Amino acid sequence: MNKIEHIGIAVKDINAANKIYQKLLGYEHYKTEEVASEGVKTSFFTCGESKIELLEASTKDSPIAKFIDKKGEGVHHIAFSVSDIRAEVRRLKKEGFVVLNEEPKKGADNKWVVFLHPKSSNGVLVELCQERE
Amino acid sequence: MNKIEHIGIAVKDINAANKIYQKLLGYEHYKTEEVASEGVKTSFFTCGESKIELLEASTKDSPIAKFIDKKGEGVHHIAFSVSDIRAEVRRLKKEGFVVLNEEPKKGADNKWVVFLHPKSSNGVLVELCQERE
Repeated sequence: MNKIEHIGIAVKDINAANKIYQKLLGYEHYKTEEVASEGVKTSFFTCGESKIELLEASTKDSPIAKFIDKKGEGVHHIAFSVSDIRAEVRRLKKEGFVVLNEEPKKGADNKWVVFLHPKSSNGVLVELCQERE
Repeated sequence: MNKIEHIGIAVKDINAANKIYQKLLGYEHYKTEEVASEGVKTSFFTCGESKIELLEASTKDSPIAKFIDKKGEGVHHIAFSVSDIRAEVRRLKKEGFVVLNEEPKKGADNKWVVFLHPKSSNGVLVELCQERE
């Protein structure tokens, strides 16, 4: 893992949360993006070499809607930047991690993403991400 | 906020979690430390310019024990590195954030730390931290 690429935070109202994180961080987000396939609207703030990603559900059966129903707003996942996502998936499977999608899928912010089940990492939903070319 | 200083993860068994995060990240933690005043044992892994901090309760009334009782294992807080913690506390209070300890206290890894209540930041417990001299 090269670095923490971003921390994903599930929020009910992304416009309200944008204002809060702008105040917290002291500067504005650099982009918004809707990922229809995942049922989410996102907003990204830089923070050093990492990012904060706010996530609002855009459909009722979005994973973010389910997460908020169950746990409330808060940290949804930690994303680590990797250089070779397929090699990392192979390595982590051998180490016993439960991979949720073996085939990398298109995530927000021009990334290939793979998720690991939180049950294999102490309740933390882990995302691996690699820049798309 | 200069960068994500670390992500704090509440775990039941820090020795077991160390093995898991060593496998996940691909390398060992660089230190362990007990912070008796906070009722926690900690273990730190580097990740780029940030760190992963595993936290196990060392007392029954530790905030980590209460967190795990209520929510289970998982991300407990996000810590941001700041250059002037007292100035940031003043700024964030004016912006409406609820500060849990106005007077910076000694945290793990040689830091002064201040926490913001999760209710003012979409369910995320935010820690500000500044290197102690």
